[in-house]
Amino acid sequence: MRYSEYLLPTLKETPADAEVASHRLMLRAGMIRKVAAGIYNYLPLGLRSLRKVEQIVREEMNRAGAHELLMPMVVPAELWQESGRWQQYGRELLRLKDRKEADFCLGPTHEEVITDIVRNEVRSYRQLPLNLYQIQTKFRDEIRPRFGLMRGREFIMKDAYSFDLDDAGADGAYERMYQAYRRIFKRCGLNFRAVEADTGNIGGSSSHEFMVLAESGEDAIVSCDSCEYAANVEKAELRVPESQMPAPSEDLTKVLTPARKSVEDVAAFLKTTPQRLVKTLIVQTDKGETLAVLLRGDRELNDIKLCRLLDCAWIEMAGEDVVLKATGAPNGFAGPVGLKLRIFADREVQAMADFITGANDKDAHYTGVNLGRDCEVETFADLRKAVAGDPCPRCAGKLEVWRGIEVGHVFKLGTKYSESLGAVVLDDQGRERLLVMGCYGIGIGRTLASAIEQNHDADGIIWPLPIAPFEVLVVMLNPNDAEVKAAAEKLYGELRERGVEVLLDDRDERPGAKFKDADLLGIPVRLTVGARGLKEGQVEVKLRAGGAVAMLPVASAAGDVARRVDLERSGQ
Amino acid sequence: MRYSEYLLPTLKETPADAEVASHRLMLRAGMIRKVAAGIYNYLPLGLRSLRKVEQIVREEMNRAGAHELLMPMVVPAELWQESGRWQQYGRELLRLKDRKEADFCLGPTHEEVITDIVRNEVRSYRQLPLNLYQIQTKFRDEIRPRFGLMRGREFIMKDAYSFDLDDAGADGAYERMYQAYRRIFKRCGLNFRAVEADTGNIGGSSSHEFMVLAESGEDAIVSCDSCEYAANVEKAELRVPESQMPAPSEDLTKVLTPARKSVEDVAAFLKTTPQRLVKTLIVQTDKGETLAVLLRGDRELNDIKLCRLLDCAWIEMAGEDVVLKATGAPNGFAGPVGLKLRIFADREVQAMADFITGANDKDAHYTGVNLGRDCEVETFADLRKAVAGDPCPRCAGKLEVWRGIEVGHVFKLGTKYSESLGAVVLDDQGRERLLVMGCYGIGIGRTLASAIEQNHDADGIIWPLPIAPFEVLVVMLNPNDAEVKAAAEKLYGELRERGVEVLLDDRDERPGAKFKDADLLGIPVRLTVGARGLKEGQVEVKLRAGGAVAMLPVASAAGDVARRVDLERSGQ
Repeated sequence: MRYSEYLLPTLKETPADAEVASHRLMLRAGMIRKVAAGIYNYLPLGLRSLRKVEQIVREEMNRAGAHELLMPMVVPAELWQESGRWQQYGRELLRLKDRKEADFCLGPTHEEVITDIVRNEVRSYRQLPLNLYQIQTKFRDEIRPRFGLMRGREFIMKDAYSFDLDDAGADGAYERMYQAYRRIFKRCGLNFRAVEADTGNIGGSSSHEFMVLAESGEDAIVSCDSCEYAANVEKAELRVPESQMPAPSEDLTKVLTPARKSVEDVAAFLKTTPQRLVKTLIVQTDKGETLAVLLRGDRELNDIKLCRLLDCAWIEMAGEDVVLKATGAPNGFAGPVGLKLRIFADREVQAMADFITGANDKDAHYTGVNLGRDCEVETFADLRKAVAGDPCPRCAGKLEVWRGIEVGHVFKLGTKYSESLGAVVLDDQGRERLLVMGCYGIGIGRTLASAIEQNHDADGIIWPLPIAPFEVLVVMLNPNDAEVKAAAEKLYGELRERGVEVLLDDRDERPGAKFKDADLLGIPVRLTVGARGLKEGQVEVKLRAGGAVAMLPVASAAGDVARRVDLERSGQ
Repeated sequence: MRYSEYLLPTLKETPADAEVASHRLMLRAGMIRKVAAGIYNYLPLGLRSLRKVEQIVREEMNRAGAHELLMPMVVPAELWQESGRWQQYGRELLRLKDRKEADFCLGPTHEEVITDIVRNEVRSYRQLPLNLYQIQTKFRDEIRPRFGLMRGREFIMKDAYSFDLDDAGADGAYERMYQAYRRIFKRCGLNFRAVEADTGNIGGSSSHEFMVLAESGEDAIVSCDSCEYAANVEKAELRVPESQMPAPSEDLTKVLTPARKSVEDVAAFLKTTPQRLVKTLIVQTDKGETLAVLLRGDRELNDIKLCRLLDCAWIEMAGEDVVLKATGAPNGFAGPVGLKLRIFADREVQAMADFITGANDKDAHYTGVNLGRDCEVETFADLRKAVAGDPCPRCAGKLEVWRGIEVGHVFKLGTKYSESLGAVVLDDQGRERLLVMGCYGIGIGRTLASAIEQNHDADGIIWPLPIAPFEVLVVMLNPNDAEVKAAAEKLYGELRERGVEVLLDDRDERPGAKFKDADLLGIPVRLTVGARGLKEGQVEVKLRAGGAVAMLPVASAAGDVARRVDLERSGQ
């Protein structure tokens, strides 16, 4: 491709509303343009990389025995009413009416449509197993679309659905998808973790998220430093502490802590550490109950774990007036002693003695608090968020904490949809059996954006070669120098003949501007053809990743570079 | 692909609501399934062929210097309000609101979005010419979706838009697209004509439709039997007849024609031919005028030509009461003599004397009618539809008439959108210039359907090889015969190794059922592996098109077939 003929509008300025690197750089590198909130054009350069991710996904899905089909974006309401999601799904489901006032939605996922296909076309266990996928435009009417392709409204997704006769079959389908996903993200050149994820309302243990590790990630994940264990921090189990509760050695003593509300302030004021404090959170559930949760002073509550313990949909911190009513004191002085609420405590608290809590009295705390002696806990459970250094729940290793971007999700659905839509087959005994399903998603645009989050520097993108829009950039330093022009054109032609994807910067621009754009675009290999080098019969090769520079004989440069690109293509 | 593992549900019965062959056969061959009116799933087999058409289109668009990008399906109303189409476009434009009550539509075409991109990103004539295209899902809320993919609501289209500094540049872009389209449909293996088309309200002469010739086509087209001239019948000009109006030789005579209303009945009753009659059509315009049009008895009115003459948007035949009021007689007896309406006549009538017309009196006609003597015509013009045998307007040849399916359309847009959206660039003198645009569409699904309309027989589809879902079908006659199974598997493996796309029918079905499905699916080459042939060391090869059968040595069959497929791939 010749840059001079291409629509590749780079921006020098950082766009004002772009908060994360991928959004900023995809705008600046002329890959995307906003059409409306969460709705983007993929300009030619952006589409090239998008298609590469799609193609890697397609190859690995096919290799795993899945079959590609294509379902519509506009889906009739009837199917969603059958599954019940027409009512349940919130306003992220964009509902619309056609000219005949019939109800439709823009499909955010396609469980209903695919289950409808399979219930109509598959009658016998002999037609199983079946795994069907599509790569298709989806729409979710996010209330706060942001971060460019990271959280868009219209986006491209690969969604796959597996159908099996029984749980064992479904487990096999799940495992094949898990392995396919590993290959996909590896081939994309990404540093990722497959982590155990919360399964929400559907239950069961089989759900993994594929997380690309990046500082800007919205999710926190933990992984063991010695075994394969990794989990979303919401899901990460913690080992039961082995130590026993020590016997009390102090008396319960009320101390004044004027205006000291935070754990840190109280600890500093009492000349101790947050670890010696127990914080008492006053919490309200979706069912309207107010209750107390005890955590070691330096820990954070894991909402998901508490919800699962209480079997509720959500919890929230109680407001000032509820706290005042429940404890008799303003925020910051709650404690378990004398409290008339159900009290739940993290297991870690079980191993503490002579600790410090609020006294349910303004500007006062207790020291020397001991459970059992001074107050009663209803239930001890694993209620806190994992932190770096926590022991691994599976081995003797320690947990590390990362930030990640969810790019894929594999999920064992069970019979949720086959039940509501009546998708059955006959087994080898002629009995009707509900199909056991799995669903497997990959955000194609988000994978691309996460690759940039993980691979960029102050100057621009640093593409992993397998998903780079072009593999090699040939910079023609001065297009008005006939020799430079001829040599650059020759190199461009030779590389293309060898099947390398090349962008030729043949613009009439200053070298500085060309190098700046080269760094911004992030094409893995840059070949610079200039008058000075040509005098020595050489061109400069520079790798965007790492910045290694070398001179190559102009005669053999195309061959050398093509071989190198070939090696890198497999994503190794 | 192994049939036994594939989702390929063929149907023995002809689906009730499928009126045309392509719809019927795509359903029966398990290529598509209906989700809602005009909305379809592409099952795996259908998607394979769809992707092949897409890929041919993509390669030829790229070769013609166009750049692929991707615009969204959900488009904000603002852009459509700027162009004015938000108000003008009828209910085929599906309008919707997002959760914040903002107006959007599902894009039926993307002139606004692409012009918005270009006005933002292109400032200088140096960035021109530019041709941008996408292959994308569109939605048009057709009032009567029908014929499967032929007239769907959600459909896949290639839409391209060219931007040039001036008319000469735009003409060049148009010509390149015209040639690219010829290559595309040729490579798809289709018999087509590029015909001059009506340019509707936009004016200008540069519009061609690409028509696949098929009996079931909704459009009629004419082409010359000796020169390159071809046109939509709506557009086809007719040469001015050379003969002069002969002098009258008969007197005007009123004759009774009881209950004879149609041209044929009157001609038979008066023992003459329809060519001796002039029919008088009472027509109403969109502006509310009632007028009369004279045509030779055997001719048909071309609405488009009359609209262009009258400068109106549409005309319709007057109803019974309007006719009665205007002529004093019921339908079937209108004539120009004594008629108090503006009278327009086709040029052919100008050359007629002593003809027969209605007498504006129930059950009566005039014979011996002569224009000038008996009545006055306001304007003579080319108002009839062309028919087979008409002289070519360009040469001495004669016109042939075909039925066709419009699969592509190239159109010189001019500055319609650049004006309304303010898309300008600076020319080499630093002056602002409106961009001159063209737009170019191909219906991807419709191209596929039209290929089937053109290539099928009573048993099923007969795919042109370049767009066949698979190139070769290997039929394993008896999967329970170890020798047959081994030989078929070996052939399947060898063909795949040679890069041939093979479907292996490894199902446990009777040979008759397999052959029936083979004919239905229409894969170009069928290789049958059976016990009888194997005894002689042979497999049977049968071509779906033409039905030629031969025996091939099993050892060399893969090589022979792969070579043949290779030759056919270019669509020659």
